[in-house]
Amino acid sequence: MSNAKKLTGAGLRGQVAGKTALSTVGKSGSGLTYRGYDVKDLAANCEFEEVAHLILKGELPTAAELTAYKKKLKSLRSLPTALAEVLERIPASAHPMDVMRTGCSMLGNLETEESFEQQQDASDRLLAIFPGLVNYWYNFSHHGKRISVDTAAESIAEQFLWTLHDKKPEALHVEVMQASLILYAEHEFNASTFTARVCASTLSDMHSCITGAIGSLRGPLHGGANEAAMELIENMTSPDDAEQKLLGMLERKEKIMGFGHAVYADSDPRNAVIKEWSEKLGKANGDTTLYDVSERCEAVMWREKKLFCNADFFHASAYNYMNIPTKLFTPIFVCSRLTGWAAHVMEQRADNRIIRPSADYVGVEPRSVMPIAQR
Amino acid sequence: MSNAKKLTGAGLRGQVAGKTALSTVGKSGSGLTYRGYDVKDLAANCEFEEVAHLILKGELPTAAELTAYKKKLKSLRSLPTALAEVLERIPASAHPMDVMRTGCSMLGNLETEESFEQQQDASDRLLAIFPGLVNYWYNFSHHGKRISVDTAAESIAEQFLWTLHDKKPEALHVEVMQASLILYAEHEFNASTFTARVCASTLSDMHSCITGAIGSLRGPLHGGANEAAMELIENMTSPDDAEQKLLGMLERKEKIMGFGHAVYADSDPRNAVIKEWSEKLGKANGDTTLYDVSERCEAVMWREKKLFCNADFFHASAYNYMNIPTKLFTPIFVCSRLTGWAAHVMEQRADNRIIRPSADYVGVEPRSVMPIAQR
Repeated sequence: MSNAKKLTGAGLRGQVAGKTALSTVGKSGSGLTYRGYDVKDLAANCEFEEVAHLILKGELPTAAELTAYKKKLKSLRSLPTALAEVLERIPASAHPMDVMRTGCSMLGNLETEESFEQQQDASDRLLAIFPGLVNYWYNFSHHGKRISVDTAAESIAEQFLWTLHDKKPEALHVEVMQASLILYAEHEFNASTFTARVCASTLSDMHSCITGAIGSLRGPLHGGANEAAMELIENMTSPDDAEQKLLGMLERKEKIMGFGHAVYADSDPRNAVIKEWSEKLGKANGDTTLYDVSERCEAVMWREKKLFCNADFFHASAYNYMNIPTKLFTPIFVCSRLTGWAAHVMEQRADNRIIRPSADYVGVEPRSVMPIAQR
Repeated sequence: MSNAKKLTGAGLRGQVAGKTALSTVGKSGSGLTYRGYDVKDLAANCEFEEVAHLILKGELPTAAELTAYKKKLKSLRSLPTALAEVLERIPASAHPMDVMRTGCSMLGNLETEESFEQQQDASDRLLAIFPGLVNYWYNFSHHGKRISVDTAAESIAEQFLWTLHDKKPEALHVEVMQASLILYAEHEFNASTFTARVCASTLSDMHSCITGAIGSLRGPLHGGANEAAMELIENMTSPDDAEQKLLGMLERKEKIMGFGHAVYADSDPRNAVIKEWSEKLGKANGDTTLYDVSERCEAVMWREKKLFCNADFFHASAYNYMNIPTKLFTPIFVCSRLTGWAAHVMEQRADNRIIRPSADYVGVEPRSVMPIAQR
């Protein structure tokens, strides 16, 4: 304790807590890269499974590898009976992130990662099962319907939409989900990923690490900004109405979610991608109000506060255009970010030292216990 | 990223990651203190509920406060039906720490902490329910028996033993459990506690924080040392046999658990307490072999390696004397450390900044995505 270095900045801000080869965030010349590739380049040219392969296995797959990987993931979707029975016991009032946390933890009882040799298989299984897991609970608890998660969906993007609406989704929607899952896949040492790495540093199992990460992503300071953005825009009826409401909020100094970023200084590289998809969805739906409203919010926030949209803001309208209930926005984040979490767990394991920092003691001085009769 | 300070020492060793008023570990003049009280002083003079009150509420209770607190905890033991049904779906082959992680997470669906004003109640509920939760699963999965967790036990220590063996335990055993729970209650920024604080820093709920902490304690580098110590001594038939086996292990450079500590330099202050209880239990049982064997191990490890017993080593024999199955040793640690975890969550919330460190990038340089047909 007495030798501990005192560092400025709460929350370990700006302090290096380890090494990673997985991504760079806000590095000069490139906004966000996964293993060297710009996220915009990936979103424009890849399916999510290609990016998952890149993050989890180290490289983009060849066509043959991608086919094999998608086939493997497709074979890993089924819910074990005990897991389905657990999901049926979670009420509709539950927070969907708590459902995912519990589902992941339960799977760890049924299909425990017994050794680190199973880490790729354990991660692939979670990647394949998560969309159906949360949507099985959603449909059962909200509509009293036991959906089949063993769909004909060709991708994780399609599987999410298919199990949510219990029918084959439109091609455009699948395309948007592919991009969305790519944008959220990995983001260096954010709080949920760091949670997974701290857990991994005790050499705990993959399910413990991912369960912990879900719990951290659940926090309103981390995941959930796209849900808050939806709550912001859903009552705005036109761009002018949006401007008026936003100016009122700014005047009352209310918190406005979906703008600015702790690491990016000038813009969030993910925004342009999802914004374009949101516009396409609005046009395809024949009602661009939500997009127009969002665009006005972007303009007002920049004009008034020099704050830019982060990845979450246009995700709100995009997801809404695809009839995704707002409460399921953060679970989609889980279906995507799982790739980054699992890859960080593997990276931590490969060069591990238990993460055990020190604390600055600010409590009372030594004292003696007074017998209870004399207190 | 570019401004990040590079620090020596992996795993944030020796780096201050926050402030705490809860405990000191290895500070000069005192081995381990909880809010200023020496852990030996607490173990000699208190029940576990007094220490839980100290850690969670800030001060040792008066006699009236203790009576009220124990009454409250006693009223919070029942398992909700849905939770019991989930526990019944977890196979006997599961890791008991995975059961606790899942049970805690499931409770978060049923009794969600909706605001931080509920943090004391949420913590008390977990404190009260955990012993029965794990033992309900244990008895159901291992003996096909649905025990009642609504016992007449007067304390958490008694509740653990009562629900495990489904009968009122001996007074001596309850006394040992009181001391054991006190010894494990709090230990500054260890990896599981730090997991809870990282999760808390996103302003997530209490159940997420504790679920994550359980996942980290599960790792073999963290919890589980008392289980490993039991595996070491259970096949030693006499002190001489112990010495011979240990010398063989040392010669073969095998890992020996239960000795030494990352923070303590000369001794673990908790060892003397549990060692004394182990001796008493051996005498009461009329068979001191396990104690004698453990004592010889202590002497040999000191003579050969200058390594001292940590808190875990004599816990193995003590728990075994009370007929506690080895696989339930780490879950007892959870029933105790929950107090420290929950108090750290409250402390983090009271002066929060999201814990988001930086990483040192060691990956490939920027590159362009090659279309899949050309890979």
